[in-house]
Amino acid sequence: MAEKIFPYNQLLEFTRNVFEKIGCPPEQAKTASRALLSADLRGIDSHGVARLSGYVRLWEVKRVNATPNIRIIHETPSTAVVDGDSGLGLVIAPFAMQIAIEKAKAVGTGWVSVQHSNHFGIAAHHAMMALEHDMIGIAMTNASPLVAPTFSIDKMLGTNPICVAAPAGTEPPFVADLATTTAANGKLEILQRKNLDTPTGWVQDKEGNPSHDANILKKGGALLPLGGDREHGSHKGYALGAVVDIFSALLSGANYAPWVPPFPAYVPMPAQQPGKGIGHFFGAMRIDAFRPATDFKQSMDHWIQGFRNAKTVSGEEKVLVPGDPEREFEILRFKNGVPILDAVVNDLEALAEKFSISFL
Amino acid sequence: MAEKIFPYNQLLEFTRNVFEKIGCPPEQAKTASRALLSADLRGIDSHGVARLSGYVRLWEVKRVNATPNIRIIHETPSTAVVDGDSGLGLVIAPFAMQIAIEKAKAVGTGWVSVQHSNHFGIAAHHAMMALEHDMIGIAMTNASPLVAPTFSIDKMLGTNPICVAAPAGTEPPFVADLATTTAANGKLEILQRKNLDTPTGWVQDKEGNPSHDANILKKGGALLPLGGDREHGSHKGYALGAVVDIFSALLSGANYAPWVPPFPAYVPMPAQQPGKGIGHFFGAMRIDAFRPATDFKQSMDHWIQGFRNAKTVSGEEKVLVPGDPEREFEILRFKNGVPILDAVVNDLEALAEKFSISFL
Repeated sequence: MAEKIFPYNQLLEFTRNVFEKIGCPPEQAKTASRALLSADLRGIDSHGVARLSGYVRLWEVKRVNATPNIRIIHETPSTAVVDGDSGLGLVIAPFAMQIAIEKAKAVGTGWVSVQHSNHFGIAAHHAMMALEHDMIGIAMTNASPLVAPTFSIDKMLGTNPICVAAPAGTEPPFVADLATTTAANGKLEILQRKNLDTPTGWVQDKEGNPSHDANILKKGGALLPLGGDREHGSHKGYALGAVVDIFSALLSGANYAPWVPPFPAYVPMPAQQPGKGIGHFFGAMRIDAFRPATDFKQSMDHWIQGFRNAKTVSGEEKVLVPGDPEREFEILRFKNGVPILDAVVNDLEALAEKFSISFL
Repeated sequence: MAEKIFPYNQLLEFTRNVFEKIGCPPEQAKTASRALLSADLRGIDSHGVARLSGYVRLWEVKRVNATPNIRIIHETPSTAVVDGDSGLGLVIAPFAMQIAIEKAKAVGTGWVSVQHSNHFGIAAHHAMMALEHDMIGIAMTNASPLVAPTFSIDKMLGTNPICVAAPAGTEPPFVADLATTTAANGKLEILQRKNLDTPTGWVQDKEGNPSHDANILKKGGALLPLGGDREHGSHKGYALGAVVDIFSALLSGANYAPWVPPFPAYVPMPAQQPGKGIGHFFGAMRIDAFRPATDFKQSMDHWIQGFRNAKTVSGEEKVLVPGDPEREFEILRFKNGVPILDAVVNDLEALAEKFSISFL
């Protein structure tokens, strides 16, 4: 798996150019490229620039609208439903999160459910928008059905991630961003490239038997909810994924469960469409709607330091706080550049050629 | 493990009597006994009347205040912080949930963080209060530190459960109520009584090694976050438990992390007390703050039926929807009575004698 290192700004600029070439207004192209590249910076390589050609293909088959009329279709003082008009989730999500933040400024909290969207990149990028306002940020989304609930062969849910970001004082913020499956699809892709088996509890085959085959999804298999099997709590991972689906799609009128549109443009849309596009859910809670922000942040510092100083099991250097690994990636890659696999570089070069723009 | 069957109403009446005997006002005794007994009805035997003598002991050592001044100490249109004045969590939680519901009526959603409380029974009882108002209900709580985060030997979190309840139309409601650990403590107690080992990924010993000993908590061991170990996603269970702690205690000013007061009255309070009592968090979201409730409930029915009709793995009869097993218990036990272990019966008889009330 050869790779090359590219400066973050070069990748950002290229991505912005591509989004402009498919017709995104300049401001939206900027928003989308920042959202997409935040994944590469934070070490979530599966959700970053590696997906750029995928978004372009969705636009080519007219499943992404480059000039959407993103708007609120219903609201109360603390809630809104946003219609994304089939735009890029990378643009719709920051729009919706901003509404949640404005509502939190006005009445303490804001909650926005989104219909008619597409994949929004990583949840953390959107949830973290709340931090500079001394708010807790929440972001979640449903996704293409790849996950079999406990006792099911059918794939009924996506990896349905949840992110919660909370500000601290002198410590960096707490940022928990997790798929509600034992392992996300990106982890399988890494094993596929290395020709390795998966651990127990990650996937099952098309008959629902436990499997260790990293390629099993291509053979009719499924990802498993966090917990793996019933004895290890998979009904909990399933329930959490279901909650994400309900908040993101049932509250907004988006597609849900096995009827969520697939990300790959070559996979046909489900015959049944009970809603519109895919769904997201965002929340913002103003800290001082509960307690003075300085008190909260002081407690967060104490909390974080408590975990960092916990005694570790033999062989482990330290107990991590959610968000630590991603923040370390972010600092390093912003400074030293982002490693891109050769296969992805080829993909980006093909995009450069298609749109007559320079990549290097 | 011999057991006897008691009618629900008899247990409820007895529990109400005991709460009155320790000085609870009659209305609060009624609220508390209903909350406690809902666990027995729903099959969560570890959290029901089996804990009644534990609550009494907390009152005896003056850690439970039978006549608390439960009040809002801060609020905005969509939020509140409640000071439980060291009362029974079984009383404070319904009080706080009711505030969340009232705020949701006014501005779409309501969010209440609680300090200075005690254990509140099962989360589902409180979250489900929202259902009759066509709202989604959310309840969570922190708890005594029994859980070691990923890579930690120290026990830094409680089993920190989350419940989300959402109404449906012709189908029964969706009710996900889950500890953020692979298995809750009650599951260990069942294995202890049967003299059985735990499956892999439930507990570790005092040095952080994997263990199968159902009695390991008494030997310095710990429960493990949902996922079990890093390879199986325990950092996700840990992150979810941490979110519960932040919402319940850091937002309210309750104790958090390893400083949460223990439930057993004989366990000394932690030397350090960074907050007050234990913390809870409640939410209510009015469905029609997002979308007409009839549309939502129709979609929920379709969603639920989709899961129920999913193809099952060999040997399993059906795919369950979160809340199904507890609802089946509730129907059966309300009709046929609640089985109580002989050890618990002895406990209740001792209470009857102590307070000169009749049990049978």
